[in-house]
Amino acid sequence: MAVSTKPARGMRNFLPADVRRRQYVIGVVAAVFEGYGFEPLETPAAENIETLTGKYGEEGDRLIFKILKRGEGATAGEADLALRYDLTVPMSRVVAEYRGALPKYFKRFQIQPVWRADRPQKGRFREFYQCDVDATGSTAMTVEAELLAAAADVLRRLGFADFTIRLNHRQLLAAILDAAGVGRDLHGTALIALDKADKIGRDAVVGEMTARGVTAEAATALVGLLFGLEGVDNAAALDRLEAFVRGHDGGAAALADLREILALSGGLSAGPHVRIDATLARGLGYYTGAIFEIAVADLAGSLGGGGRYDDLVGMFLGQKIPACGISLGLERILVVMGERGMFPPSVERAPAAVLVANFDADARADVLALAADLRRGADGVTLAVEVYPDVDKLGKQFKYAAERGIPYVAVVGAQERAAGQVTVKTLADGSQAAVPRAGAAGYIVTNMGHSRG
Amino acid sequence: MAVSTKPARGMRNFLPADVRRRQYVIGVVAAVFEGYGFEPLETPAAENIETLTGKYGEEGDRLIFKILKRGEGATAGEADLALRYDLTVPMSRVVAEYRGALPKYFKRFQIQPVWRADRPQKGRFREFYQCDVDATGSTAMTVEAELLAAAADVLRRLGFADFTIRLNHRQLLAAILDAAGVGRDLHGTALIALDKADKIGRDAVVGEMTARGVTAEAATALVGLLFGLEGVDNAAALDRLEAFVRGHDGGAAALADLREILALSGGLSAGPHVRIDATLARGLGYYTGAIFEIAVADLAGSLGGGGRYDDLVGMFLGQKIPACGISLGLERILVVMGERGMFPPSVERAPAAVLVANFDADARADVLALAADLRRGADGVTLAVEVYPDVDKLGKQFKYAAERGIPYVAVVGAQERAAGQVTVKTLADGSQAAVPRAGAAGYIVTNMGHSRG
Repeated sequence: MAVSTKPARGMRNFLPADVRRRQYVIGVVAAVFEGYGFEPLETPAAENIETLTGKYGEEGDRLIFKILKRGEGATAGEADLALRYDLTVPMSRVVAEYRGALPKYFKRFQIQPVWRADRPQKGRFREFYQCDVDATGSTAMTVEAELLAAAADVLRRLGFADFTIRLNHRQLLAAILDAAGVGRDLHGTALIALDKADKIGRDAVVGEMTARGVTAEAATALVGLLFGLEGVDNAAALDRLEAFVRGHDGGAAALADLREILALSGGLSAGPHVRIDATLARGLGYYTGAIFEIAVADLAGSLGGGGRYDDLVGMFLGQKIPACGISLGLERILVVMGERGMFPPSVERAPAAVLVANFDADARADVLALAADLRRGADGVTLAVEVYPDVDKLGKQFKYAAERGIPYVAVVGAQERAAGQVTVKTLADGSQAAVPRAGAAGYIVTNMGHSRG
Repeated sequence: MAVSTKPARGMRNFLPADVRRRQYVIGVVAAVFEGYGFEPLETPAAENIETLTGKYGEEGDRLIFKILKRGEGATAGEADLALRYDLTVPMSRVVAEYRGALPKYFKRFQIQPVWRADRPQKGRFREFYQCDVDATGSTAMTVEAELLAAAADVLRRLGFADFTIRLNHRQLLAAILDAAGVGRDLHGTALIALDKADKIGRDAVVGEMTARGVTAEAATALVGLLFGLEGVDNAAALDRLEAFVRGHDGGAAALADLREILALSGGLSAGPHVRIDATLARGLGYYTGAIFEIAVADLAGSLGGGGRYDDLVGMFLGQKIPACGISLGLERILVVMGERGMFPPSVERAPAAVLVANFDADARADVLALAADLRRGADGVTLAVEVYPDVDKLGKQFKYAAERGIPYVAVVGAQERAAGQVTVKTLADGSQAAVPRAGAAGYIVTNMGHSRG
């Protein structure tokens, strides 16, 4: 009757090496966005159930994990709490709760797990981290430009070089559909078909549109325009799109936004990566303005995406609060960095730099004192130092260090103690050196530096 | 029909200043324990319900948050998952799942929220962080000594100086009770009474013991011994305890453990803080050996505690795995540090060091470029830089910066641009300086340094 020791379905244990990688990426994201004045926010894992229901559509409602009501008044099966499903609804709740206390331009990042009762599949989990960065309170395109610059900074600092920031605008898409002669009632259908272009190809997109009631003429015009822009530079693409939607007010405003984002981004880190892509639709969601998505060469799917959504954050306030945000695909970034070996040695490191051997019961206090000395390190570099807890044969302890990937073993026997020395064994080459005790940390720090360089 | 914007009962939003304080403490804890070779572990928020039930006693079972089973096969009201209730059961599950892959001496720290459906009250929440550090696989007292040293390092690095590490031993307590003539069936009762000594005083402890069946003679002997040790130094206290339990095997072994912990700690950071305290009982839990608790002068309750528990971690394996751990009271540490103003300026800081003003629509690209320049900082110090997103009057922007606590505002008008300069306004004294653009970051970094010093 043994209980399973696996984690719950679709959820994961993160062992030390996983946690180090995750915290490294989270650390870079946080540091970069804090540099832009974004501030960290955290909300509870569980929300009152009425805070969440009805916010994610019928499908979303079904995927919410619900928590049983406790106590005597509870009807059997009644749920009063639910697990966080995304980070936008909690942020909107916080914006409403602290109305007046938060700055006019509240800029927050939030990096926390969310839970969805999806069918688990490869790379898709029931508990996963979202990493959302949003700026509220302004409709200015400086916001879009700074978000894209910060996202580009994050990716570059993580070691991505070859990424593209695809940029489009929901109102431009609407104008294009209008201009192509697609009825308003078919905009959603047409966008869904368009969204599949990457996967099914342009002919199938035309087929799907006409099957759903878009005229062949409109579908052909649309596909001709949008796919004709491949390889065309940003300025020329915008000119062609402008010609196509000429006389459409929404289209003109959207084009002005896009031109402004390009102009503002020109001198920033995102500049070289931004590419106008009129096929980008970003689902049917809540976006109202510019939309963007980060693509990496040789990688299906994106590393993040977002856009402007001016009608959502005010949901609990009953008023409009303009907002623009980007959600970085933390889980996917981690997978790609792992596959590509992009983590630095400081992350892919052993649990300790030194193991202090422990083979003489009478010398244990000195072993612990040596460990404390070594931890202080040298030249401003501290060392992680593990003590072999049990008194045991030296050979066993060298083996333990090797298995753990710990590169150095420090040994103090009676002889070393009498001479004020420590023997440092370098496991990589089996070499040993007797060094003065006060210089042991420095010896290791110096050697680590060499082996890295 | 407005939905409440409050967090769920007993749970908290952490606004930016809260998150910064929390992450600072978590960062210190992690850095110190990593220095001792402890490694980070994270487990899912939800566990299969059978993993948790029956592990925390009847009372605990009632406080577990249960998650409704989803999908078609689910009976109404059936729960299949439950929220993490502590960090020991998940660690034990991980130790069993990765048996063979984990090192013999698996040393982990885990800093994650847990959820308990307790009645919320002041300082007590339904979602709160636990911070557990445990070393498994060894019965050696070097483990206790290193845990105490690391905990002392954490507290000292956080700025606590006046703390005491109370040290006792479960087997010594048992031996004392035996020697005093308290029957084994009354040990639990006697320890519960003893545990209240701080609050109710020694006479009430005797009263409570005798009311529950302990003889007056035994109760008086016990209280006389234990409270007679106040102010007695460690060596003398151990001698008196030894005299009291002479001839008791368990007692002798326990005293040997305590003497060893004291000897091993002597040269370490914990040394001056450790005090033998035979009144420490640490509840009735799962401890089997040394127990300890960290007390701070002028503070009721503890900042952390722990001990050896050799029978628990193997619960899923059906075998003994020795373990010793400490749980730091993260939430309480945060409260005390807040009350005592112990957070450093780097934590209690403004969201940005500089606000770049934005008052000329034609100059927005330059405003963003200046912000990017300033972020690079100077002399190895980077700057957090916010851009005022909307084009607006300068006065409004100065006011915004002041409200946000941002100390500097950088202004580039047409005049500054022509001269290759930036005007930096220091809000603290209202002073303004026109500095060369390339030197603006350096000017701010230098001035920040002065104002701190």
